[in-house]
Amino acid sequence: MTENRSEITDRDNALFEAGIKLGALYHQFTGSPLSISGIASMEKAIRESIAAQPFVEKIEVKIDEKRVFGEINETFRYTELKGAMLDVKAVIRCRSARVFVSLKYDEQLNYPLMKIEQIETEF
Amino acid sequence: MTENRSEITDRDNALFEAGIKLGALYHQFTGSPLSISGIASMEKAIRESIAAQPFVEKIEVKIDEKRVFGEINETFRYTELKGAMLDVKAVIRCRSARVFVSLKYDEQLNYPLMKIEQIETEF
Amino acid sequence: MTENRSEITDRDNALFEAGIKLGALYHQFTGSPLSISGIASMEKAIRESIAAQPFVEKIEVKIDEKRVFGEINETFRYTELKGAMLDVKAVIRCRSARVFVSLKYDEQLNYPLMKIEQIETEF
Amino acid sequence: MTENRSEITDRDNALFEAGIKLGALYHQFTGSPLSISGIASMEKAIRESIAAQPFVEKIEVKIDEKRVFGEINETFRYTELKGAMLDVKAVIRCRSARVFVSLKYDEQLNYPLMKIEQIETEF
Repeated sequence: MTENRSEITDRDNALFEAGIKLGALYHQFTGSPLSISGIASMEKAIRESIAAQPFVEKIEVKIDEKRVFGEINETFRYTELKGAMLDVKAVIRCRSARVFVSLKYDEQLNYPLMKIEQIETEF
Repeated sequence: MTENRSEITDRDNALFEAGIKLGALYHQFTGSPLSISGIASMEKAIRESIAAQPFVEKIEVKIDEKRVFGEINETFRYTELKGAMLDVKAVIRCRSARVFVSLKYDEQLNYPLMKIEQIETEF
Repeated sequence: MTENRSEITDRDNALFEAGIKLGALYHQFTGSPLSISGIASMEKAIRESIAAQPFVEKIEVKIDEKRVFGEINETFRYTELKGAMLDVKAVIRCRSARVFVSLKYDEQLNYPLMKIEQIETEF
Repeated sequence: MTENRSEITDRDNALFEAGIKLGALYHQFTGSPLSISGIASMEKAIRESIAAQPFVEKIEVKIDEKRVFGEINETFRYTELKGAMLDVKAVIRCRSARVFVSLKYDEQLNYPLMKIEQIETEF
């Protein structure tokens, strides 16, 4: 088995940066106390927070209202932001490379899956 | 030295709950990527998040724009929410007791100080 | 309804500080990736982290192995630290007052409940 | 300017996953209360936590004791884990691709820099 040490490309950096953004988003904001009425402001704050980081060309953040509703504690009338409630689409660009990534709950895996959706390289 | 084990009062619970809210706020949201343009939405999201928890009668959250500006990284053009940027006032109520607490950077202590401002008990 | 604005006592401060510690612990560490083999080191790190804060006389942190086991994702073989896995007992002291507080999952409330267990005042 | 939509490779996935791990580590653990005596257990817990995630072949976590010491609050005798204190090296592998990434404070940029150090592809 031979190994090939190769140059780091724009594409490599864009993918690395895309992962950083999703990992940051998830571990910064999950756990936040959340009520139905607070969904819109939480979505906006997360979007603007992550968009403040370098290389973020676009980001959309949706919190699944039905899941929030389903998780509201009966006694205390709120829940926490959980990974399974998040639906995020982000476009990260490093010079000639643009990558589209997502974070979305995968029912079959029972997991908030982060995924590379598409990679574009310009030349 | 004698010890007195005493009944837990509304006042006790209000103070305990007030501490929980400030501890939660601080450790949930500090570290969030932040730009000047994202201050307003971050303030709103934090306020609505913490207000979703039980016993919160009122909460005000201010992020110090000057401190954010002073901390912006020159190369990457953003910073993180830090404890020293936060100015929070909250009113927590458990039945007959209402407590006013704050979180504010104390210059002399060089510390984001959480403090009981006032306690009111009704009878 | 008259109101009584009163002096802030050691007891008040101890309860406020106790709340801060539990709120901080919960919102700092829940969400951490966790496997069965990582339980012991996570317990120790949480204990030493919170014990570093002022007024903490004693703290015990247990993570419920059965709950961790039950939450392990089948495909990815790990889970996250969740509030319901935590069993924390802390003793907070401000001069003449010592308070015993806990964080433990309450089955009936389906909630990680923070609670004042006992208050001791010396005189 | 033409664009090339291309297949997603092991290398792409490894870089994306590497970014996720560093983003997660940073935003999960920075902010944790920290004393000198708590450094070793915090390093161990972070290492074991992140190693529990998929695709992590190896991870080393060092917290800079000098920086911790320099940041200890004089009155309260502790500080928080800050990005600038972290020195992390991780190896992430997705099938045929192995990437070496790091997180380390960059003095010149005044920034906790996440970086791709090396990429190896086997064939």
